[in-house]
Amino acid sequence: MKTTILIHCPDQSGIISAVTGFIHKKGGNIIYLDQHVDKEADVFFMRLESDFDSSSFDLEKFKGEFASTLSQPYHMEWSLHLDSVLPRMAIFVSKYNHCLYDLLSRYHSGELKAEIPFIISNHRELEHIAQQFDIPFHHIPFSKTSKQNAEKQQLTLLKAHKIDFIVLARYMQIVSASLIDEYPNKIINIHHSFLPAFAGAKPYHAAFERGVKIIGATSHYVTEELDAGPIIEQDVTTVSHAHTIQDFIAKGRDLEKIVLSRAVKLHVKRKTMVYNNKTVIFS
Amino acid sequence: MKTTILIHCPDQSGIISAVTGFIHKKGGNIIYLDQHVDKEADVFFMRLESDFDSSSFDLEKFKGEFASTLSQPYHMEWSLHLDSVLPRMAIFVSKYNHCLYDLLSRYHSGELKAEIPFIISNHRELEHIAQQFDIPFHHIPFSKTSKQNAEKQQLTLLKAHKIDFIVLARYMQIVSASLIDEYPNKIINIHHSFLPAFAGAKPYHAAFERGVKIIGATSHYVTEELDAGPIIEQDVTTVSHAHTIQDFIAKGRDLEKIVLSRAVKLHVKRKTMVYNNKTVIFS
Amino acid sequence: MKTTILIHCPDQSGIISAVTGFIHKKGGNIIYLDQHVDKEADVFFMRLESDFDSSSFDLEKFKGEFASTLSQPYHMEWSLHLDSVLPRMAIFVSKYNHCLYDLLSRYHSGELKAEIPFIISNHRELEHIAQQFDIPFHHIPFSKTSKQNAEKQQLTLLKAHKIDFIVLARYMQIVSASLIDEYPNKIINIHHSFLPAFAGAKPYHAAFERGVKIIGATSHYVTEELDAGPIIEQDVTTVSHAHTIQDFIAKGRDLEKIVLSRAVKLHVKRKTMVYNNKTVIFS
Amino acid sequence: MKTTILIHCPDQSGIISAVTGFIHKKGGNIIYLDQHVDKEADVFFMRLESDFDSSSFDLEKFKGEFASTLSQPYHMEWSLHLDSVLPRMAIFVSKYNHCLYDLLSRYHSGELKAEIPFIISNHRELEHIAQQFDIPFHHIPFSKTSKQNAEKQQLTLLKAHKIDFIVLARYMQIVSASLIDEYPNKIINIHHSFLPAFAGAKPYHAAFERGVKIIGATSHYVTEELDAGPIIEQDVTTVSHAHTIQDFIAKGRDLEKIVLSRAVKLHVKRKTMVYNNKTVIFS
Repeated sequence: MKTTILIHCPDQSGIISAVTGFIHKKGGNIIYLDQHVDKEADVFFMRLESDFDSSSFDLEKFKGEFASTLSQPYHMEWSLHLDSVLPRMAIFVSKYNHCLYDLLSRYHSGELKAEIPFIISNHRELEHIAQQFDIPFHHIPFSKTSKQNAEKQQLTLLKAHKIDFIVLARYMQIVSASLIDEYPNKIINIHHSFLPAFAGAKPYHAAFERGVKIIGATSHYVTEELDAGPIIEQDVTTVSHAHTIQDFIAKGRDLEKIVLSRAVKLHVKRKTMVYNNKTVIFS
Repeated sequence: MKTTILIHCPDQSGIISAVTGFIHKKGGNIIYLDQHVDKEADVFFMRLESDFDSSSFDLEKFKGEFASTLSQPYHMEWSLHLDSVLPRMAIFVSKYNHCLYDLLSRYHSGELKAEIPFIISNHRELEHIAQQFDIPFHHIPFSKTSKQNAEKQQLTLLKAHKIDFIVLARYMQIVSASLIDEYPNKIINIHHSFLPAFAGAKPYHAAFERGVKIIGATSHYVTEELDAGPIIEQDVTTVSHAHTIQDFIAKGRDLEKIVLSRAVKLHVKRKTMVYNNKTVIFS
Repeated sequence: MKTTILIHCPDQSGIISAVTGFIHKKGGNIIYLDQHVDKEADVFFMRLESDFDSSSFDLEKFKGEFASTLSQPYHMEWSLHLDSVLPRMAIFVSKYNHCLYDLLSRYHSGELKAEIPFIISNHRELEHIAQQFDIPFHHIPFSKTSKQNAEKQQLTLLKAHKIDFIVLARYMQIVSASLIDEYPNKIINIHHSFLPAFAGAKPYHAAFERGVKIIGATSHYVTEELDAGPIIEQDVTTVSHAHTIQDFIAKGRDLEKIVLSRAVKLHVKRKTMVYNNKTVIFS
Repeated sequence: MKTTILIHCPDQSGIISAVTGFIHKKGGNIIYLDQHVDKEADVFFMRLESDFDSSSFDLEKFKGEFASTLSQPYHMEWSLHLDSVLPRMAIFVSKYNHCLYDLLSRYHSGELKAEIPFIISNHRELEHIAQQFDIPFHHIPFSKTSKQNAEKQQLTLLKAHKIDFIVLARYMQIVSASLIDEYPNKIINIHHSFLPAFAGAKPYHAAFERGVKIIGATSHYVTEELDAGPIIEQDVTTVSHAHTIQDFIAKGRDLEKIVLSRAVKLHVKRKTMVYNNKTVIFS
């Protein structure tokens, strides 16, 4: 029975020894351990993959003893995930299809180990792709007057399907606080620039205007401040004076889809932790 | 006799044909041609390397006919450079040595085809490197009261040695308008961030604070607005949560020296043109 | 009427002048010119985009005069393409779907300016994707005894649909000489290594075995010697000791699809020329 | 008192717990831990940075107890390094200066935490650089008849100065088995290609001939088989048809010096382990 444990707590001497000793005593075999200490904040982070004998492993008992033996004395925030339980993700899209195609083709070929109960869009343009991949598509249009109502519909769907996290695959609406509060550090966005450069609207136009020689894409968790959430993954590609804005956009598409899919895969594998508006990305 | 001609003018039909026809008629062999049209501004740019028979080539006569036949009717701004004439560069430094070492070792091994009559610094820390490479070093200290006087000294030196362009190799003073006006698009700076992200002071600290996954360096021509001049060259390297600010700085040093040296080499080979605060970088 | 002209011929003085003068005289406006001289082979290459007035442009007359005025005296090999005529591409696949998905989603969204009359496969696994995208799918199985017959079937289909070029999107059969001879420098393959390293079968296993820190993908034109044809495009990504062969394969998939699609787009835009088993890739 | 411990041993359950428990019991604070399991070979690797109270830490006693408590029962190969003890490196060069300049300027500015007792060369061309940086230079010429004698001289110098590891900074002689046997996995070479492509002589010429679109550099530990030792670090840069062999060489120089210096820094920080002709590079 494979498990992944994520921990963070105030740094102090002896944590690794205590946790690995506990796992060992419980009959677990540690397959992988990665840890990090944020020296400035004095916080300790760890990710542990362990294998337990399924026949004898008692999940609830393990959790109880972990809490009393470790998490309480060390003031840990922690979570334990069974690798057999796939996280449930909802995809939000608008009109651009490249990120959606990339996610769905990875999902379809088994590369993306998640469940996708549905796709939400404020437009109907990509409904045919949802149909291609046989995934329910919910059209929830937005207008100035309907915004609140639309968000309520979204939230109802998310709750009804027990969605764990949300992927904004070039979703062209600003997500409101009510949704962010329900899914803190669980909404992944792709921004089509090398943040913090060119936050906000039309980053390729701004990059062209500035005459940069490299453009980028950034996936990040959504927070209330626009394009300012914890960065998960970034990548870049070179451009030159010979490229038009249309060329920037075309080159950028290839970045966006790869950078978003990488972030989604890291999240699905529970390789990300968030602290002080930054991420720890485990190897 | 190898020559490089740089041209820009309003775009219109027939320019390439006219210029290449003229070179051909004058007995020149075009070794290389690169051109670019800025569609938004409707401006044409061209760089031509041509070879002429030294025994019969009359530079002044050529320039005169070029002006009357081409540059006047087509409203060209243009320049002609003999490859045998090396541009003269001055290096400005403060206390960091990595860019200086990189430039001087390239110069010393003949890779950088320029003359370096002297190095100017507001500190004495790098004087020994100038001595290592046997290049005159001028210590011109800065203080609040002496700024104007110091700049006058700089300008006197630059003029006396017929300096063509200036390289700020991690020079930690803001260059004032009086110097920029004398050397428009002829002062190359290296900024230790991926501009326009993190302009100004302490970019590595800001990048660390923001939790970016990639850091960069940018070489650009100096204009009056700080870190906002035409970008010549950029490059990036990946970082992670595991890197400290000191790691950012160390990784950044390797970017800075390479990106600055690339920009200097492009300038020396007359492969850069500036228009509307952007560069055209010829191949 | 937009046209693209590709030329190569023995290098000599005056070619650019002659060609651009001719275009100008015929009323064409040169939008873009890129040229290259292979100094070793003394061969000149040029790509020209020109715009002509559709109402007066006589294609056959233009071709005739180009031939007599330019291509014969300069011993040119040349071709002229109307941008309005889309090249017709056939896709060959086996069982891997990532390259196919990438090509078809670009095609579907109008990014790939080609026609795709059909997909050929030696297996049925990807037929459903062809159906998703509404493209005819021909299953032509291979066995030791049927190889020749299968290839005949392929060729019949290719000819019947006037296919211009072929894309091997992770097609796991070796293409025989009879097909290569019909489509010289018109069959694009993606090899899942950084050629010439790890040519042949199982390159990710070989890369893992060697302990490399970077893996790559290479798109190239198919020639009779396996994985030795002219390289169009390459890209790489970093790996470490922590990656398994499965990780190499997963990271490689992202490279393969992007590198193949870039090569196909270059070919479709007539930006590639082949000479001496190497490519010239115009900007 | 900061220490670094490197361990490898057959993989089994409980090692991390045992080692971290031991360090904790001895009063050490673990600052950093990175581990890796080679699943194919079933071998466990770990690197630990720990801090001990200098006033009470007894190095010899610690080593003895570590041996009896851990290394014997777990069949470990292990080493313990005090961070205060700088490794001693010798540099071997021939005529190219870029790698030497890069190493020495890093050393000079305190970035490279090693001691450099001397430089050895089979030529006199770079003696002036050794003098610039005030480092003893030993000219040991090679000829067919003197080879054995020259190597004996090298070895005498290396032993006399208690050299820990050797850096071949574009040293153009093949190192013989007698030297490799004395310094197993302790001789770092820079090869100017993306290994395993273009092993052996003149890799840039071979890369040019093949028409690759990317060139690289590889630093590796020297083994008896030429250019086939464990790879430490690789990097690449793009090239095009427009680049000559001279351009390849110039672009390659920038790769070579950076890739070699990165490898040297990893070795100096004891972040490398070798197993089965591959490296584990700790983060």
